[in-house]
Amino acid sequence: MREVGIGIAGFGTVGGGVLSILQRHARDIESRLGARIVVRRVAIRDPDKARPVELDPALLTTRFEDLLEDPSIEVVVELVGGVEQAFRLVQGALERGKHVVTANKALLAARGDDIFKLALEKGVDVYFEGAVCGGVPVIRTLREALASDRITALHGIVNGTTNYILTAMAEKGEPLSTALAEAQRLGYAEADPTLDVSGGDAAQKLCVLAQLAFGVRVKPADVLTEGILALTPEDFAWGEEFGYALKLLAIARRVSTPGQPDAVEARVHPAFIPAGSLLAGVRGAMNAVLLHSEALGPSMLIGQGAGAMPTGSAVVSDIIDLTRNVVASSPGRVPLPHGDARVGLLPHGEVRAGYYLRFSVKDEPGVLARVASTLAQRNISIAAVQQREQGTAGAAVPLVIVTHDAREADMSAAMAEIAGFGITVAPTRLIRIEAI
Amino acid sequence: MREVGIGIAGFGTVGGGVLSILQRHARDIESRLGARIVVRRVAIRDPDKARPVELDPALLTTRFEDLLEDPSIEVVVELVGGVEQAFRLVQGALERGKHVVTANKALLAARGDDIFKLALEKGVDVYFEGAVCGGVPVIRTLREALASDRITALHGIVNGTTNYILTAMAEKGEPLSTALAEAQRLGYAEADPTLDVSGGDAAQKLCVLAQLAFGVRVKPADVLTEGILALTPEDFAWGEEFGYALKLLAIARRVSTPGQPDAVEARVHPAFIPAGSLLAGVRGAMNAVLLHSEALGPSMLIGQGAGAMPTGSAVVSDIIDLTRNVVASSPGRVPLPHGDARVGLLPHGEVRAGYYLRFSVKDEPGVLARVASTLAQRNISIAAVQQREQGTAGAAVPLVIVTHDAREADMSAAMAEIAGFGITVAPTRLIRIEAI
Repeated sequence: MREVGIGIAGFGTVGGGVLSILQRHARDIESRLGARIVVRRVAIRDPDKARPVELDPALLTTRFEDLLEDPSIEVVVELVGGVEQAFRLVQGALERGKHVVTANKALLAARGDDIFKLALEKGVDVYFEGAVCGGVPVIRTLREALASDRITALHGIVNGTTNYILTAMAEKGEPLSTALAEAQRLGYAEADPTLDVSGGDAAQKLCVLAQLAFGVRVKPADVLTEGILALTPEDFAWGEEFGYALKLLAIARRVSTPGQPDAVEARVHPAFIPAGSLLAGVRGAMNAVLLHSEALGPSMLIGQGAGAMPTGSAVVSDIIDLTRNVVASSPGRVPLPHGDARVGLLPHGEVRAGYYLRFSVKDEPGVLARVASTLAQRNISIAAVQQREQGTAGAAVPLVIVTHDAREADMSAAMAEIAGFGITVAPTRLIRIEAI
Repeated sequence: MREVGIGIAGFGTVGGGVLSILQRHARDIESRLGARIVVRRVAIRDPDKARPVELDPALLTTRFEDLLEDPSIEVVVELVGGVEQAFRLVQGALERGKHVVTANKALLAARGDDIFKLALEKGVDVYFEGAVCGGVPVIRTLREALASDRITALHGIVNGTTNYILTAMAEKGEPLSTALAEAQRLGYAEADPTLDVSGGDAAQKLCVLAQLAFGVRVKPADVLTEGILALTPEDFAWGEEFGYALKLLAIARRVSTPGQPDAVEARVHPAFIPAGSLLAGVRGAMNAVLLHSEALGPSMLIGQGAGAMPTGSAVVSDIIDLTRNVVASSPGRVPLPHGDARVGLLPHGEVRAGYYLRFSVKDEPGVLARVASTLAQRNISIAAVQQREQGTAGAAVPLVIVTHDAREADMSAAMAEIAGFGITVAPTRLIRIEAI
């Protein structure tokens, strides 16, 4: 039986998942493949660290070179994480004509272009299903299933940590600090959750998805990114009144303006969505990607976004796919992501969305009038208003305004102006609304 | 540029969708493929019928032979429907070494084995994403994405017509007749809806899915099949009280018994599912498939199940995939579905599920006792009971019992026995409960 040798760099959570799946399902995989996947070397940082999976110690090495220089290794699986070190490994593999599987979204977001360009030169493949939403086959769907279609919009819950936190806040009315602590206790959140709660992790994933969906090159720094730290139970309560659920969404959308080239907006921020929508039903640490495309209309993929087995399974399905290409000697069968020169990035100021605005205003005459007229001057039209009477005169009252779609630039200008009036006693809360 | 010739048999709704997608996206597809897909012939039944898509009349023919005998046609796309005629076409194509794309679930359910066997002999491919849940890439996911995993259960909403009807009954409290008439008016249901409302269409799709998921060969006649015609608004109302949504589910599950080979249960019937579950949120004509697998855990695909563009798009993605195999000369890259000798079909009597039982009983002493003791004798344990007091003495009263999981055979026996008591004044309603 034809053997395909692979080298795995990184033996942490995902690496352990990959190796245990390869071991447990070896027989099924062989019968499906008509070929045998053989792990030749596993590169690790710390030889003394205990490993979750049994492995012939002779396979272990601390030197990437042992993978790169082994001619019997045709596929290198990069699971070391980070950017620089991982890039050197992937670059080395590609230069030697080896195919690459990576689950490293940070690497793809930062150096994807260089990697895909080099792979194209060398005529080898790069697969990366594990890099975005572990158990959700969104990469494969974008690269293959939708090859016949034209995607118009992508809305994703792509970070399980924040979705777990927001689900707890919504269902238990907890403040963020409580929900975060619980998520950390249960292992859904890191000791340092910054990358997750800031939206940075979601922005990296969005860069990978947006290039596949729209052929647009986006760097995390180009993504309009807002985290969840400012969200309060009060926002959830108001959302419920208006029939909204509150989720951290990664959004990419094609904006067509007559006479101009298409532009793509890319943003990550908390968003109110209709409580009855499919995305609103995605609870806890689950991930989901909702796609809108011309032929299919709406379609959605849901699954576990992280963890040894879900992500490990995605990596193994890539290894199997690559092995098929190796056996059939059909590399480049599915073209690598490429930039579409026709598509640019929409300036953040031009993004249009509905807005939920929660002002804390002094309870005095004319306040609503000044806010409303300022919005009107910026062509921001109001869909709903609620003002709560407070018991004590002169105390601050909440004023909540929901607007129709408006230009981001107009909204920022209006907010700056209103802040200058001195009628608000606390920072105004602004949450975008997505009518999906 | 390399050209791959295709012949399309059938120019109805789906055929029109396929041709318009191929025309509209020709440029994108070429750039993605590095090859050109050329439609060489289109076989139609009635030359005089008006077509939704512009097409060079010279391409049209009424003879399948013109597709089969054209050496420049490498891929035959079967969209004629039905079993016998379609089988002859597919058989003819495979025998001549042509690859086949089909969107014909009835054909696959009835003759899939023969087709896959012949394709294997001839070393050609058969793709069929369009055959099940049009716009939902479930075939690709089962054949490829989950190649690394082991599926334990599959729950699908695979018939848009019945899901549209059940959604209307649930949300408007309508009787089935009203919802069905509305579905027919809007084109969601055929003039003769038998195949949909009987569960027959879902059973055909389940056969295709079960073979892919579990390697088990199932014919529609082997599927425990129950339609939706007996459902009443009363059942929805009771379900709501118990926190259930009511859906027509296609279910296949692997049942492992120590010391015995795995068996697969295959059934299509209305089922109560938790109102908060993901499947419960799938409304209207949408389709969804929920998979449980060892590594991924739960994952779900949602999309439009039917229609020219969704199904057409699935067919075109198959054509693109096949074209990749042709260009890379890597047929058989993804193995065809094959039977797994280790897996058999579970006898219907052995299927275990929870049950909702709605009796209409005479309002007289001892009735509940007799029903309860009969269930107990069959090891059917009761989870909840509700009996409604009726105004008029002696009148029939509804007695609703929810059971824990029980053997189908035990339940049938208990129902037969109870029917013999002469304490029920109307047929007892039985709806299975799936705790997903």
